[in-house]
Formats: sequence, C-alpha cells, structure tokens
Amino acid sequence: MTASGPAVPSEHAISALRPLVAQLDPEGLLGAWQARNAKATLPHVIGALGEHGNLANLRRVTGDFDGPFAGMWFADTDVHKTLEAAFWERGRTGESTAFIADTAALLEKAQDPDGYLDSYYQTDHRDRQWNELHYSHEMYTAGHLIQAAVAAARSAPGDHAAEQVVSVARRFGDLLVRRYAVSTAGAVDGHPEIETALVELFRVTGHRPYLDLAASFVDRRGHGFLGADRFGPRYFQDHLPVRAAPEVAGHVVRQVYLLAGAVDVAVENRDHELLAVAERLWDSAQSSRTYLTGGQGSRHRDEAFGDPYELPPDRAYAETCAAIGSFQWAWRLLLATGRAKYADEMERLLYNGIAASTAAGGTAFFYSNPLQLRTGHDGSEEDAPSQRLGWYSCACCPPNLARLMASLHTYVATGGPEGLQLHLYASGTFTAGAHTVRVETAYPWSETVSLTVTAAAERPWTLSLRVPAWCTDAHLTVNGSLVRTGAQEGYLRLTRRWHEGDRVELTLAMPPRLITPHPRVDAVRGTAALARGPVVYCLEHADLPSPLAGAVFEDLCLDASAPLAAVADAAGLAPVRLDARIGLRSEEAAATVALIPYYLWANRTPGPMRVWIPLT
Amino acid sequence: MTASGPAVPSEHAISALRPLVAQLDPEGLLGAWQARNAKATLPHVIGALGEHGNLANLRRVTGDFDGPFAGMWFADTDVHKTLEAAFWERGRTGESTAFIADTAALLEKAQDPDGYLDSYYQTDHRDRQWNELHYSHEMYTAGHLIQAAVAAARSAPGDHAAEQVVSVARRFGDLLVRRYAVSTAGAVDGHPEIETALVELFRVTGHRPYLDLAASFVDRRGHGFLGADRFGPRYFQDHLPVRAAPEVAGHVVRQVYLLAGAVDVAVENRDHELLAVAERLWDSAQSSRTYLTGGQGSRHRDEAFGDPYELPPDRAYAETCAAIGSFQWAWRLLLATGRAKYADEMERLLYNGIAASTAAGGTAFFYSNPLQLRTGHDGSEEDAPSQRLGWYSCACCPPNLARLMASLHTYVATGGPEGLQLHLYASGTFTAGAHTVRVETAYPWSETVSLTVTAAAERPWTLSLRVPAWCTDAHLTVNGSLVRTGAQEGYLRLTRRWHEGDRVELTLAMPPRLITPHPRVDAVRGTAALARGPVVYCLEHADLPSPLAGAVFEDLCLDASAPLAAVADAAGLAPVRLDARIGLRSEEAAATVALIPYYLWANRTPGPMRVWIPLT
Repeated sequence: MTASGPAVPSEHAISALRPLVAQLDPEGLLGAWQARNAKATLPHVIGALGEHGNLANLRRVTGDFDGPFAGMWFADTDVHKTLEAAFWERGRTGESTAFIADTAALLEKAQDPDGYLDSYYQTDHRDRQWNELHYSHEMYTAGHLIQAAVAAARSAPGDHAAEQVVSVARRFGDLLVRRYAVSTAGAVDGHPEIETALVELFRVTGHRPYLDLAASFVDRRGHGFLGADRFGPRYFQDHLPVRAAPEVAGHVVRQVYLLAGAVDVAVENRDHELLAVAERLWDSAQSSRTYLTGGQGSRHRDEAFGDPYELPPDRAYAETCAAIGSFQWAWRLLLATGRAKYADEMERLLYNGIAASTAAGGTAFFYSNPLQLRTGHDGSEEDAPSQRLGWYSCACCPPNLARLMASLHTYVATGGPEGLQLHLYASGTFTAGAHTVRVETAYPWSETVSLTVTAAAERPWTLSLRVPAWCTDAHLTVNGSLVRTGAQEGYLRLTRRWHEGDRVELTLAMPPRLITPHPRVDAVRGTAALARGPVVYCLEHADLPSPLAGAVFEDLCLDASAPLAAVADAAGLAPVRLDARIGLRSEEAAATVALIPYYLWANRTPGPMRVWIPLT
Repeated sequence: MTASGPAVPSEHAISALRPLVAQLDPEGLLGAWQARNAKATLPHVIGALGEHGNLANLRRVTGDFDGPFAGMWFADTDVHKTLEAAFWERGRTGESTAFIADTAALLEKAQDPDGYLDSYYQTDHRDRQWNELHYSHEMYTAGHLIQAAVAAARSAPGDHAAEQVVSVARRFGDLLVRRYAVSTAGAVDGHPEIETALVELFRVTGHRPYLDLAASFVDRRGHGFLGADRFGPRYFQDHLPVRAAPEVAGHVVRQVYLLAGAVDVAVENRDHELLAVAERLWDSAQSSRTYLTGGQGSRHRDEAFGDPYELPPDRAYAETCAAIGSFQWAWRLLLATGRAKYADEMERLLYNGIAASTAAGGTAFFYSNPLQLRTGHDGSEEDAPSQRLGWYSCACCPPNLARLMASLHTYVATGGPEGLQLHLYASGTFTAGAHTVRVETAYPWSETVSLTVTAAAERPWTLSLRVPAWCTDAHLTVNGSLVRTGAQEGYLRLTRRWHEGDRVELTLAMPPRLITPHPRVDAVRGTAALARGPVVYCLEHADLPSPLAGAVFEDLCLDASAPLAAVADAAGLAPVRLDARIGLRSEEAAATVALIPYYLWANRTPGPMRVWIPLT
C-alpha cells in the first residue's frame, strides 16, 4: 500500500499536520469516485494517449515511430500525469500494470544521455531546446515527469518500473540543477510546476540541490524575464516577485501551481515569510476572485483571474486544472498551518468545481466549468461546449483528474501517534499511530458521520472532526452520550483514552441554504443560489415540469419566500434533490422544481442550466 | 467638393433614399468631430504610419528600405484606410496633401506587374501568397485599397494621385477577377471586406465583373471552406451560408463587414431575398446582442458576438471597428429601405459606441469600449486599458475612425429633387435638388433644431425630419406656427412649396431617461442606466464628491426615486450633465452626483466608471 500521497513535508519542515493514507470504501461518494477513476477514467485516459499520439511522440524519439508529432508541444505531460495516476493506483491496489512497465521503459529509452526528455524538442525542434523558456513548457514537462517518479517512489518502492522512472526523473532533475542552479540570467519556465516537483523530489531523495533550485525558481520569478508574449508578464506571474505580489494575477493554473510550489519551498526551508505570502494571496483570491463552486478564472481569453469581483457565471472559465491546483495549494496550506478554512475550500472544490468536470460515467470531461449555460448557447467551441468531451486538443485536465482521484485517499485526513484529524468525510478506514477508526457515512447526502474505534492504544489520543464553515449546528455523541463541546477553530476535538468499539456520531445539520451573492459581484446581482451541506445545486432545463419547460429558461425566477425542501430521491441523479418554487417573471405558472447538485449537470439532454437564479 | 460619400447605390439599384453630401459647420458637434479629425486624428495617424513602419513595409517592396517587416501581416490596411480618409478630406476641403501624393506614388511603385499588392506577402512570404486565405487578409487588404480608390474617384476626380490609386486598385481588382471569378474551390478571404469594396469599385467604374465577384464571394461563404483554425468556422461566418444564417455569429467585425457587403450586392443585383436576410440578421443582432451604446461583441477571446443576452458591461468588447462596421451596415440598410430604425442606430452608435473610442484631444483611442471599469482594474493589456492609447499593435481602429469622420458629412442626410431627409441633426448646409436648407442646432445638447430655407424652387418639395425612437414628444413649427402632424414611420414630413427664408423649428423633448435593462441580460440585473436624447451617460469616479469618493466605487447605488436633472454646465466636460442621487448601499451619505456622457469617460484621472448603476 502507498506509504504516502503527494506533498509530504520532511520531518524538519513547518508542518502543523502530518498527512495520512486512508482506505476509502467504494460505497461512499469519495470512494466511489476513486473506484470510477480506476475503472473508467484511467483506462480511458490511457487509451487516449495511444489514440491521440502522446505515446507515439515519445516513440519518435526512440526511433520506433516515424509519423508526425501530434498534439500540443507539451503533450508529454499527459503521459507523465497518467503515469503518476497509474502509480497511485498501483499503491492503492497493490497491482502493477502493463501501462506502467511499458511507459517506464519508453521514458528510459527516450531520455537523452544528459537527462533531457521532451519529445517535442528532441525531434523536430532541437535548435529551440532551452531557448524559449517563456513558451516551451520544458521544465513544466520535467515537473510532471518528476511527480510521476515521486508517486512511483511512494507507491511502489522496489518495483523495477518505479526505479526506472525515479532514475529518469533524477537524471532530468540533475540536468536542471547543472544548467540552472547558478544561473544569473533569471531563467524560469513560463509555466510553473517544476517548483513543487523539485521539492517533492528532494523529499523523496533527500538531495538538497533540488530544493535549492525550487527555492531559487520561486524567487527568480517576477522580474520581467519572460517578456510580454501575447498576454503580458502578469500572465506568467512575471510582473512582480511572489513575495511582493499584492494579489493573485494572470493565468490561474500557473498562479496556483506556483503558489503550491511556494508553500512547499516555504515549509521545507522554514521560510515563514514566504508561507505568509502564500496565505495572504490565498485570502486575496478567496475574497474577490473565487466562484461559489471554488472555481477560479473569469476569462477565456487568457485563462486568467479577472479583476476583483469579476465573476460572470456564464463565462466562468473555472478550469478543471485550476481547481485541482487550487485543491493542491489548499492542502499544502492545511498541512502547514492546520487551519480549517483550507480544508473547507478543499471540500468545496471537491464536491463542486472539481466534481463537475467529470461525466457520471467517468469518461467525458469539462475543461472549463461555467455556472450558467444559456438558451441558444453555441457549444461548438472546446472551451465552452454544451456537454463534456472525451478528449481535448489541450487535454491537460483528464489526466490531471486521474492523478488527483487516484490519490484522493491521501487528502482526506491527517494524523499520527497523537491523534487523527478528519478533514473530509467519507466511509473508510483511518489509521493514525496505534489507533484505527472506521468511518461510515452517506455524506454529503447524510448529516451523520458514524465512527467506530477498531484499534486503540493505552495513551490518550485526540480525534479531531472538522465542522465545515457552512454548518451552524454540529453536535456529536460518544457511545450514545451527547458531548457538549464547541468547535475550536473549525474542529471538534475529543481527547481521551479510546477503546476498541467506542462509537462517535457526528451530526452536521444540512438544511437547504439560500445564498445571496456579494453585492460587488455585478454578474449575479438580484439572484440567489441554493446549497445543502457542501454541495451547490443548480436548475437544469431537464428538470422543468411541462408548464415551465416550454418557457424561455432565462425568464425563470426563484421564489425565495417559498420553503426549500431537501428530498431523498433514490431514483434521482443524486440521493438528495432540492425542491424550490420556480416561476416566470409574471408570477403565474409557478411550480415546485427539483434542483440537482451542480456537479451532475449536463448528464442528460443538453439544455440551459444556472446556479444563480434570478429572484422574483 | 466631394461628389458623394461611401456606398452610393447605382441608379438601377434598390434604393429608397439617395445619399447626399452635406456641409457641416465646425460649431456643431458632428462638425467639430470632423474638424478635430482633420486637425488632430488624421495627422496623428499619418505620423503613426511612419513611426510604426507601415509605410516602410511598402518601401521594402520597392527596395527603398531594408529593415524588417513591422507590425501585423495586414499592416498595409492601415495605410489604405488612412489614404481613404485623406481623400475624403481632400474632397471636403478641396486641398490635396503630400501624404496623398507620396502614398499614391508608393503604392503604384510597390504593385506587382500582375496587380498584386501586399507588402507582407511580396517580401518574406512569397511562397505563402494566395495559399492561406483563411488567415492572410490578402483580399481584406485589397478591399481597403479599393475603398481608398473609391474615395479618390469620388473626391478628387482628375487629380493625378487619385487616378494613380484608382488604377492601382483596378489592377488588383482585375487580378482578383482573373483568379477567383470562376473559382470552384469556394475560395473566400477569412476576413470579409472585399465584398463591399468590389461593389463600390463597380459603382465607380461600371465594370460589372467586380459586382459579380462580390456577389459570388457572399454566396461562396459558409461551406466550411476556411477550416476550423483557432476559433472554429463560426469565427469566419463560414459555418452557414449567409442566406441560411438564423442569427449573427462569430467575429463581429467580420460579420458586420460581410453583411454591409451583402446589402451592397443585394441592392445592385436587386436581390430582395438577400436584402431581407440582411434585415433579418440586423434585427437578430439588435434584439439580443447589442449594448446600450450600440457596441457589439461580448467576448475578448475571439472578438465575437456571444450567446444571446450575454452582454457583460465590464468585459464588453464592443470593438471600435465593429461599431464603425455596424454604422456602415445600418447606413446601407437605411438607403435601401428608408426605415428610420437604421438611422436611430446610426445615431446611437455615433454618440456612444463610436464617440467613446476617441479621446477629447483626438489622438488617443480605445480598441474595445467597455461599459464598466472596476476598482483595481488591471489596465496593462491593450485589449482592456484604463485609458485610451495612441496606437495599437493591431491598429485597425484609429485609421478606421479617421476615414469615418472624414466622410461623416455624407452620412447625415439623403435626398434629391423631391425632398430632403434629415437623419442626423447637425448644424450645416444641406442641398437637395434645387433646394438648400441651413440647419442650426446645439444638438444633442439642445432640444431644438432650427432650419432655414436658403434656396427653393417652384415645385412642391418634402422636408422629412427623423423623430428618434427615444423621443416621445416631438413637435415643429413652420414660420412660427405649430404644425399638427404626427411622425410617419419615424419621420415628420412637410410637403409644400417652399420659399427662401422659410423657417422650420423642430423640438425633440429630451427629459433625462432612466433605462432598465432587458430582464434576460443577467450581467446588469438590478441596475439602471441614464440617458438624455441620444446620449448615454455614465458615473465616473472623478465626479464623486468627497464623502463618496472615498467609498469603494462598486458599493455605489442609484436612488431611482430621486428626480434626475439635466443641467447646463458650460464649464463641464459636456454642455449638459445629468444630476442623479447616488449613495452607498447603507443609504447614508447619499449625494447629488453629476453624470457625464459615456463617450467622454477616461479623459481625466484614471478611475472606475459604470454605465449601469446598481439600484438602491
């Protein structure tokens, strides 16, 4: 079984919490997503790498294929992310696969003697190698290769294929250190990613130059080295040094990957100043540049954060990879600080901004995740389709989802000999130190989370249970007795000498919530959204009863004075729907309409959808 | 003096109205804009062509310059549009210039023996000539060259330079006819413009193959010939034939130029079906894809029309060239049909969407024209600066403005021996047949337009005065006596035997108007805008009194229950400001704030601005 997941701080690092590998039951929602990923998404993605030429690109380097290069110039990263996913699955299930063995051998064979590995630049574009860092994604590609190796080292130590990939990654890492450790030219990659990867490689190998290079990349950035290119230096976060930036800016994936890397550097170097910068920028992003779904990025033009409060629901970009990067950034801040708000955000992303990306069947995906689709929407463009697509010309998101979902069990809890901290609620088994806890819950549909201690030691041990910020009524019982304790900084904490068979039941009240937008968000003024627990709901055309189904969808309004009802719906798309009163502006023909979880939209007949509903 | 302006239908064409060349007084607003264009904009643009290498690009072809090619691959069009502007000025003022002579000679010298003229493809990219029509803009470039020649033929017949340019344009037009008249490959240019140019060249020369080729280009389009490129076939209007398109789509400038050309073809070929298509698409665009300013284009990504009712004020693209193209399209429809709604739209564009593009001084310009600028706006990108810029990397708009403004006097009225139709109100002299009318007015600030007949003939003659759709109270007097007549289809018509000295006074009541948005336009729900007459007003930070100036601009609201007041303000940015009650959401600290005409925003200290103001 996997020894650890992504982002494991070294022992000497700043680290309020220690990550922990759980085992999720496939019956719970998170476990079911993980099982779907293994069964549907990962095989689909592996198949796509063959169909769309990503693997063939590497075989061009080894001389085993002589067709043209296919796809984006950074197409290797799809291979690397998929390999990372396969290694996490290898660790979770204990079973290796032909894809792992074949890909490890292919990468080893394709690597240059000096450690370079990038099929685009190794074939037709040797003259441009290392010459266009603002554009090339060469270190971004190296970063994803390294992350695959980190997954290999943590999931399959001793496996031949894992050792191959680790060796390949180290050779590339060593090349980067030789080329760039003493660079005075301010050389950085246009697309951050190498920073977090190098810190992780340091964590796996103990080789300090990787960490030093990552730290240097973080601080080298922001001096205009990368030039203006199409979208100006902000696009690359090269307009200001990270430490001086007053707010997040530019291309969202670049920004959140960079800041995830900055946290990794900060904790390993015990650089409290840099950690504070990452916390400050996180607050800035949350306060004025984050959607209700956790999605980030308001602009299609440059996949960028917009101006403050510029959050259009229809043109939300909210890229899937940005949500994944934001999840990873929040996880790192959670580990470093122990602050519940980061876990709150991980939860929001998981059930909304990230979950919406994937079709119910697990083999089709959104790249952008809007909060509204209009009647008459032109869905002909890949950046704003009406339905999820199986693959993309820039297919960064599907393999990114595969690696996240394959490692999801490593993001739900933290702990150690002193206790267990449960951040995300899912059925499964959690071992921290000498204690093991079984969790059973139908969360997020059910309000109750049942925990049973199945192994315990003799000394006191603390069970910490997160009370989400959306929950105003949480209570718990221990062995049937109500415990009168309030949440401290977002967690209910129970410290005691535990015994096998002890039972804890946590209840998080989930009445349907009407959410009104921040008044500075012009794009959704005069509307409200509905949520229950961590799940944001939406109105989709397919759920309209016949008198309303014939109306123009944009004329529908929510009667906020009518009661909202959470209704168990075993035959529905989700176990719990929300019933609300929806009518036309004229206020005739109002009807009770079932809203579905936002993340399940676009799984039926294509049609308009909205999260923010105009009020009557 | 110019014999006629742009878009003069042939005698046999469908044509409800005949264009007419007026003489505008520099004291009126339109005349003042035209004077500013002559004095500031046109010299600025001519200077920029030198500074930014556009003229040097052509000198590379003639061997008189050996530096690199500069700017966009279609940089020649900036030269052609400027030359067109210079010729309209030549016609208006009677004075030729060195720029005209030099440029005419340069174009003649740079032209290939077969008629080809495109400095990008003539120098470094001969191999790609005619090989990438989806991208090349070669016919778009030819189109602007031809339009310069049309201006030359109409403004300076007999001038040597004019004859040179007409000859150059005809040689290029003849080359197009030879290459493409019998093309079966469906060859069309990725950027429409050649269609209207070829019809105009036919009108000037009487050479029918130009018209036939234009007609063929209109109908060849829409069969997916151009491929998907970056943004898909809709971007080029190549997804559906013009006649089959249910609504406007894709890149706005391409769409409106194409439809202007379609109207030209339709009227010359008496193709009522095609004319009806253009009218239908115009209605479609107006109903769901046009801003309050007349601007069109909701998306920065591909400079495109968005989905229906997708009209964000902050991310409005509303490109200046799109507004100019829309103005030209509306003018052609007005001439063809005589319908007042087209003149209404020309007026709206002129005082808002087009006027806003140009700084008060006439030498800085917006490319995109948003209806809102937020606190904290990142103005570092050319497509959304906080202030107007002197030039652009794609500088299509400034010379386009120069040619429009230089020919503005040809767009204000129509008429002939039977009468005069006044569509836009401006001080000036209007001669139609044997009658001449002097107009004096401070419109759009003043409600009154005074007309004096200064020459008359003995037979009855009809004076038609447009009553704008925004005006619900229009009346007129003839020689001091109130005339009881209602507007017919948008025009007040006076048919009589006129005498020298007859005086007509038209009053168009202009109370300040509170405009509420269409309820399907989510982006401005819960707001209102203010207008007076044809002029849309805006709230700009620079006008806030001190208690409000310190608040966050996005927290300001309009108290719609308080009276609005139009106030003469001789010292202000405009002669009439609108005073409205503006407060914070808390409703404390409300104050009377002066709103300025939207088109004058961003002429003072940079700061936030909005047209649509949240209601308390």
